[in-house]
Amino acid sequence: MSTHKPPVIAIDAMGGDIGLDVTLTAIALIQKRHNDVHMLIVGDEIAIRAHKAFPAIDDGRICIRHTTQVVAMDEAPASVLRHKTDSSMWKSIEAVRDGDAQACVSAGNTGALMASSRYILKMLPGISRPAICAVVPSRGGHVHWLDLGANVDAKPDQLVQFAVMGSELVKAVDEKAQPIVGLLNIGEEAIKGNDIVKETSKLLEQTGLNYCGFVEGNDIFLKEHLDIVVCDGFVGNVALKSVEGIAKYIQTTLEQEFRHSIFSKIAALFSLPVLRRTKRRIDPRTYNGATLLGLQGIVIKSHGNADAFAFANAINVARLEITNGIIGHIRKQLEQPQPRIPAEDTPA
Amino acid sequence: MSTHKPPVIAIDAMGGDIGLDVTLTAIALIQKRHNDVHMLIVGDEIAIRAHKAFPAIDDGRICIRHTTQVVAMDEAPASVLRHKTDSSMWKSIEAVRDGDAQACVSAGNTGALMASSRYILKMLPGISRPAICAVVPSRGGHVHWLDLGANVDAKPDQLVQFAVMGSELVKAVDEKAQPIVGLLNIGEEAIKGNDIVKETSKLLEQTGLNYCGFVEGNDIFLKEHLDIVVCDGFVGNVALKSVEGIAKYIQTTLEQEFRHSIFSKIAALFSLPVLRRTKRRIDPRTYNGATLLGLQGIVIKSHGNADAFAFANAINVARLEITNGIIGHIRKQLEQPQPRIPAEDTPA
Repeated sequence: MSTHKPPVIAIDAMGGDIGLDVTLTAIALIQKRHNDVHMLIVGDEIAIRAHKAFPAIDDGRICIRHTTQVVAMDEAPASVLRHKTDSSMWKSIEAVRDGDAQACVSAGNTGALMASSRYILKMLPGISRPAICAVVPSRGGHVHWLDLGANVDAKPDQLVQFAVMGSELVKAVDEKAQPIVGLLNIGEEAIKGNDIVKETSKLLEQTGLNYCGFVEGNDIFLKEHLDIVVCDGFVGNVALKSVEGIAKYIQTTLEQEFRHSIFSKIAALFSLPVLRRTKRRIDPRTYNGATLLGLQGIVIKSHGNADAFAFANAINVARLEITNGIIGHIRKQLEQPQPRIPAEDTPA
Repeated sequence: MSTHKPPVIAIDAMGGDIGLDVTLTAIALIQKRHNDVHMLIVGDEIAIRAHKAFPAIDDGRICIRHTTQVVAMDEAPASVLRHKTDSSMWKSIEAVRDGDAQACVSAGNTGALMASSRYILKMLPGISRPAICAVVPSRGGHVHWLDLGANVDAKPDQLVQFAVMGSELVKAVDEKAQPIVGLLNIGEEAIKGNDIVKETSKLLEQTGLNYCGFVEGNDIFLKEHLDIVVCDGFVGNVALKSVEGIAKYIQTTLEQEFRHSIFSKIAALFSLPVLRRTKRRIDPRTYNGATLLGLQGIVIKSHGNADAFAFANAINVARLEITNGIIGHIRKQLEQPQPRIPAEDTPA
């Protein structure tokens, strides 16, 4: 990945709950904001060109690659692998494999995106499955959290790989020399938790990572010195969605109470700037764009129901990861010897 | 449990991060609010009588049981079982076993409370370990959620037991005839999740429970028709603490933004009633008091850092469960034949 050639990002224009309305508007936003990015729009060329949100400015940084198929949001991964190899999702990933793009972004269905990415790009040496890594706001700024649903269970050595990959991602993107890694558990003491987290913790202590030990759910958002939180995909997915649920619940409750009476409506008017600033700081759209880590290429998953602002943020994640050469960093780190669970106690 | 005799609740007065300041103030609150409750205060009698918060009104509904020991907040359960049998926690549970009280409430350490309760009260027939069940706010009012950390992993038949016990609790306390049970998973489709949740789902379909299938993390707070959410204790504990973490983070962010400038401070003044009402609706103190389900007696766990308002709510949970004869209901339901995983496919 040369830094002299401007990066190209392949965009699955047809993916997501909404499709072109969102993806094309986001592409126009990125085109305006970042002079250094080229974009390859993958989808139905006629529909794209005819769409009102199709970028008006033709500055040579936008190309279209025509495809005839679309992956449905509820389509089984196996069906995609067999029947949807001319879909916008598939062709976006292929563009990365073939070097026509250095990253791809899709708001399409997660299972299909994962399966297709594994099939087309292959995993990095030593990695068996990708992990989904997203950024969430925290008292210390933000935290990278993985796995958020790629693996329904994970063995200790896989969790260690997640920690290694997350650590490299933060080093590159946030420019931190020694990012701090925590392992999600139900208590901070070494005796707490199930066998898998106990074993993982022992392995993590043997790595060169800046491992701070077990962290609890609340620490994700409240512990100031924490950069990466590692857990298996079942726990991560449930916890992240629970967090999204309560945040939405709090927002709705606040809105209801501000609509409660004429007095509270006046208070709402006075409070608008405060509420807007607060919303911006916790807005999940700001944090849209999860990385599928462990692949031989950059694949960014946007929320299916993202709007253009959120989808543009996902494209920006791709841009940052290309600029920082994240795949090279992870590959290099994985070539280091990883700690192993000893089969039995042997003298050193 | 006769309904003619007023219920007695044993209170571990020394438990929690704060101890007597909180527990005695809460006891005085309950004494004022509920004429039908007697309380057995368990702890250091001299310290209790000398304390400024010791209930001023002697209406014959308050007794003290003297104990000499206190269970530390970080004390290992095994140490409590061996060395702390004259602690306020231990004697509170014994009061339930001996029929001197119909429930006990403690803000002491969870592991110790669980281990002591299992040892002293024993489990209900067919139940191997207790489950921690708490109430959280939701769009439909509130949801009972279990297990929140008693078991670091759970087999399908245990998860079914959690569903049965949670269902009986809601039937009794919320007076719902057919409470709706959801199983926490990383997607709603049957193909999603790990083997344990898939197997559990099949079993739940064979019970007489009002089982609605898989639910996701956000559904806990946003799905209107949902009364009980079931998961293993690792997932439940991490997700609940994550939710507490983000709620705290949102609250802090909002407070910071309202202190931002003189204008936002004025807006804050106007908004005070709204913010207070919102806080009340999502205040974790309102929902304090988790039930240790599966024991042959009612044991309520309060947050360790609860204040008097929160601790009084935990006492009130005990009061409601006694009034509704919850143990009898669960016992009866467990006597029904439970679905089993078939060893092999046999003709019906």
